[in-house]
Amino acid sequence: MPRRVTAFSNNTVKRLRSLRDKKARRSEGLFLAEGLRIIAEARDSKRLPEIIAFSAAGAKHPLAAGIIAATEAAGGEAIETSADILSKMSGKDNPQMLLGAYRQPETSLERIDRTAAPLWIAAQALRDPGNIGTILRTGDAVGAGGLILIDDCADPFSVEAVRASMGAVFTQAIATASWRDFQAWLRSDAGQLVGTSLKATEDYLDATYHQPCFLLIGNEQQGLPEPYEAECDLLVKIPMAGRADSLNAAVAAAVMAFSVKASWR
Amino acid sequence: MPRRVTAFSNNTVKRLRSLRDKKARRSEGLFLAEGLRIIAEARDSKRLPEIIAFSAAGAKHPLAAGIIAATEAAGGEAIETSADILSKMSGKDNPQMLLGAYRQPETSLERIDRTAAPLWIAAQALRDPGNIGTILRTGDAVGAGGLILIDDCADPFSVEAVRASMGAVFTQAIATASWRDFQAWLRSDAGQLVGTSLKATEDYLDATYHQPCFLLIGNEQQGLPEPYEAECDLLVKIPMAGRADSLNAAVAAAVMAFSVKASWR
Repeated sequence: MPRRVTAFSNNTVKRLRSLRDKKARRSEGLFLAEGLRIIAEARDSKRLPEIIAFSAAGAKHPLAAGIIAATEAAGGEAIETSADILSKMSGKDNPQMLLGAYRQPETSLERIDRTAAPLWIAAQALRDPGNIGTILRTGDAVGAGGLILIDDCADPFSVEAVRASMGAVFTQAIATASWRDFQAWLRSDAGQLVGTSLKATEDYLDATYHQPCFLLIGNEQQGLPEPYEAECDLLVKIPMAGRADSLNAAVAAAVMAFSVKASWR
Repeated sequence: MPRRVTAFSNNTVKRLRSLRDKKARRSEGLFLAEGLRIIAEARDSKRLPEIIAFSAAGAKHPLAAGIIAATEAAGGEAIETSADILSKMSGKDNPQMLLGAYRQPETSLERIDRTAAPLWIAAQALRDPGNIGTILRTGDAVGAGGLILIDDCADPFSVEAVRASMGAVFTQAIATASWRDFQAWLRSDAGQLVGTSLKATEDYLDATYHQPCFLLIGNEQQGLPEPYEAECDLLVKIPMAGRADSLNAAVAAAVMAFSVKASWR
């Protein structure tokens, strides 16, 4: 049976709340997901939270009730609490009525099976967690296998990234790696590394993409560093019709990913 | 000569700071843009701020110095101030060293010349200012004429939208309209209204797009309301390969816009 918790000082409340900080996420190995939609998505992907917190109203939805019961049956902790405390935990004024703490998956490159999908997205030094979540969501929609985060990227398990992923944090493989380790892993087997660059001469619509294709997306401010571009098997340009010289990183990833997929029809 | 201002209580400081609020933006008819990149972009589009604020370091850049001088020559106000005060005005811990207040353009539909571009983006009840700014940025890159905001959208002149637009707020036409007024305006001349829908049977890659083409993007949570879909001349679907049933609104706009453009090659 779920416990009722009404004190901000309760240990579980404090623990869940701490997961908004990267350090605590790392030391606990947990991350937060909010809302029935994402938590149901997780369950469909065979993932249950280790801790689930909910309001009395939130538990009334049959889907939520089922997930709460399944969480407890699997040895997890369930607490019923107030909207105020849920708000404190999620950092939102209008909190979702359901909030789960999930075990972070292992993110080593070795866990990536590149034959599992024709397309993968790799991002270099991406700083905006919203962009990372949006790219995960796009990856799910386009049929990519997952996202490889190279160098110092924002945390894919932050509340902002999980929110923007709309559940894709549970369906896409996620790996983190240094550039050197990524290079070694990439070249240990087949794979085409594709970058976008203003300096490229080949239009992205005219290029030939091979499977498995690895799309490399650069940092929001600087784009790809020169040596990273040089490592690419194919550099293409997305022509810019206006005054801007670049797209938002998540938009560039999506335009490329959907075009690569379209080229394989 | 620019004045030096060091007091938070200074009237110009208070006025600039107030522009983070929609009410003040509306009553003043001004909006904020931050950073040399966006302010230089504005100047290239023949737009100067009415008020410009900068740190001593910010004024050292020749491009910034030129814009400050041009602003004063045009009768605008220039103030040199501290990083602390710039931070207060922009709401950021690491503020840009340059900040301008610009006159908001008139946003009536009648100002849109649909023959000026083959492609236009229309968004319905878009709530996230970051999405609006990102769509403006995409519109600039893809060669769209501008963005028409239908029903109750977030403010395209908010600090967040201007920031995400990366200057495209100065290069794209922007209109706001009710759905009824948009319908009347749209049908008063040639134009194909294109929506995306999960219920559509035609793949977005197989459809025929006519100029001028108006892409209609729905609200982040609900998508397009049924009567809005029914008004579309063409409904297409972007196939979803994974578990998610939709894309981020700015991503959907970009995938559609670049595909429409590609279909015209």
